[in-house]
Amino acid sequence: MKVISILGSTGSIGTQTLNIVREYKEEFRVDALAAYSNIDLLEAQVREFKPKIAAIGDASQYKELKRRVGGLTYVAADREGVVEAATAESCDTVVSAIVGIAGLIPTYNAIKTGKNIALANKETLVTAGRIITEEIKKNNVKMIPVDSEHSAIFQCLAKGKQNEVSKIILTASGGPFRNRTLKELENVTVQDALKHPNWSMGRKITIDSATLMNKGLEVIEARWLFDIMPESIEVCVHPQSIIHSAVEFVDGAVIAQLGLPDMKIPIQYALTYPERLPTNGEKLNLTAIGDLTFYEPDMKKFKCLKLAFRALSMGDSACVVLNGANEEAVKLFLSGKISFLAIGDLIEKTLDKHKIISNMSIDEVSALDLWSRKTLTNLYELGCIK
Amino acid sequence: MKVISILGSTGSIGTQTLNIVREYKEEFRVDALAAYSNIDLLEAQVREFKPKIAAIGDASQYKELKRRVGGLTYVAADREGVVEAATAESCDTVVSAIVGIAGLIPTYNAIKTGKNIALANKETLVTAGRIITEEIKKNNVKMIPVDSEHSAIFQCLAKGKQNEVSKIILTASGGPFRNRTLKELENVTVQDALKHPNWSMGRKITIDSATLMNKGLEVIEARWLFDIMPESIEVCVHPQSIIHSAVEFVDGAVIAQLGLPDMKIPIQYALTYPERLPTNGEKLNLTAIGDLTFYEPDMKKFKCLKLAFRALSMGDSACVVLNGANEEAVKLFLSGKISFLAIGDLIEKTLDKHKIISNMSIDEVSALDLWSRKTLTNLYELGCIK
Repeated sequence: MKVISILGSTGSIGTQTLNIVREYKEEFRVDALAAYSNIDLLEAQVREFKPKIAAIGDASQYKELKRRVGGLTYVAADREGVVEAATAESCDTVVSAIVGIAGLIPTYNAIKTGKNIALANKETLVTAGRIITEEIKKNNVKMIPVDSEHSAIFQCLAKGKQNEVSKIILTASGGPFRNRTLKELENVTVQDALKHPNWSMGRKITIDSATLMNKGLEVIEARWLFDIMPESIEVCVHPQSIIHSAVEFVDGAVIAQLGLPDMKIPIQYALTYPERLPTNGEKLNLTAIGDLTFYEPDMKKFKCLKLAFRALSMGDSACVVLNGANEEAVKLFLSGKISFLAIGDLIEKTLDKHKIISNMSIDEVSALDLWSRKTLTNLYELGCIK
Repeated sequence: MKVISILGSTGSIGTQTLNIVREYKEEFRVDALAAYSNIDLLEAQVREFKPKIAAIGDASQYKELKRRVGGLTYVAADREGVVEAATAESCDTVVSAIVGIAGLIPTYNAIKTGKNIALANKETLVTAGRIITEEIKKNNVKMIPVDSEHSAIFQCLAKGKQNEVSKIILTASGGPFRNRTLKELENVTVQDALKHPNWSMGRKITIDSATLMNKGLEVIEARWLFDIMPESIEVCVHPQSIIHSAVEFVDGAVIAQLGLPDMKIPIQYALTYPERLPTNGEKLNLTAIGDLTFYEPDMKKFKCLKLAFRALSMGDSACVVLNGANEEAVKLFLSGKISFLAIGDLIEKTLDKHKIISNMSIDEVSALDLWSRKTLTNLYELGCIK
């Protein structure tokens, strides 16, 4: 349990902090409250949270506060009183949420007495950054920013825990046909499908990008890489391919990785992890890009993506069939034997014929892969799907 | 030094991997290369990188490859040959970049022989996710994704190192006046300035958001929180306030934190760090938002932001003056005594009068704060700025 002192308890950050304490009574206890002048709200907070100390910055209100809650808690006032609240012995964490430089001295003293700081008062670092960062090191305390921007940066640097992931958001460029209708997809040529808007890749994966099967395969890959259930994987079409994917955590925070569409960073990172090495190439400039857009994928137009989710829900062996059938169907499309939309139709028919195999061995995977290719080829030769 | 085996060395990922090896000769060595059929390129790669083994998947080309490079390296062929390359004894890392299920068996064998895997072949996990993830655990090896989406997620979960940060990107909503001209800002009222488009906050910080001084103070705060030089801090206007800020690393990867504009997450995170607790509120839905925009801040219109960078470049004590002068100027504006644009003008004049003090004590900070307030009040009373 964390024992908290809130400096600025009647302000916007202070009251929101108390909402969190109210929600998680097992996690947090409030032993100190300090406000500047709003004694009505401070009184209510004292009655509800029963702190050991309540401090009022505006000394002229000391007597009135003491009259109201003096029987319930120790009452302090003026700057010294706020410092008393900031350094209250039983507290381990101080939420520094006083507005303006008035927050500096209490925060400074809290650090000196070994408290961890949740910092919402930016003036503390603006006016005394060098002194404060030295004291943080000297006293071996943590300072966690509350400002949304600095919290964001802090979160970007922190390690994410896999068991706290609530959702994976896989972004998709949408491929070359994202703006075409289903009707228009009927007459797509091999040449059309090989023109990918953002990424330069091999032929097979470029076709998979056009059908969105590539995204479907990535959903299955993510399920295993990050040990996450399929219903927690979301595909989001993002034509600029700048946000390469994102993770949502249980508290609602989303962490995303961004960059120019260039495989150099992911390849290099895979080789250098957990370190990063400098690159000299062009860097992402958000203001030059200007605009990032997002929309839901159309599962009717891109049946292959739907089939990937279906295979995942059927079971492991269905994913083998999906993949084998797709490899074979893409070959048929690239050699001009079937239409673009037939890729999905043939895979669907192949999946229909599959009976789930549990606990496959690696040899069974290879055998099932061959079965799915043969089955798809037979379906093609029967000539019902072109 | 990492010793690498590249499966699929003549493909898109393979050749890009070799570019990285070429760039970082001290970090990487290539001991094994495997390709399917492009023997011209494989020959060139053998001549340049001098691997211990070169494997060709297409067995019909074995003799020709052996004729060309048999004197330089051991030549293997067919599926077994690729597995030999995947399990070559001196290699610790296998880049698995063969297209299709053909990559499965070599990758499986690489894991079995204790190699770390840089995984570009998604079929390995699509077809045998359960088997592969078990083998990874059993053999205690790492699997790092190369696919840009999965690499993104992997990076979102990894700890960021402060010494690898190349830039901090602080986003700014732009405040209520981002679309007004400088001329229009002349007649802004207190009421106008108190209406913030995205965030609900106290009066002082709402005015600071309207002048962008809030962003300026955050730049100074970030300088100390993340031990980063001012020239590596960039402000980017992002009216939707969804990306709360971002970090660019030396390799060009950008990690960002996103969320709805709600202080609950950052406050709670500051209290629960390094853990996260679930929240029940509305979650970010990128497809519902649809559009994120970015542009550069106008430092002429928002002089306060420019003054914050100026104070940082002057020295620590100038930041105290900037802050004290701003607090006083905002008071004057809120009480209707000065115009909106006079806030920046008065702060600028106050900064002009300041002489830098080095190695301030905490008491000197407080004294300088008072000086800056008095100086600004005097400037106001002189009546040259309204």
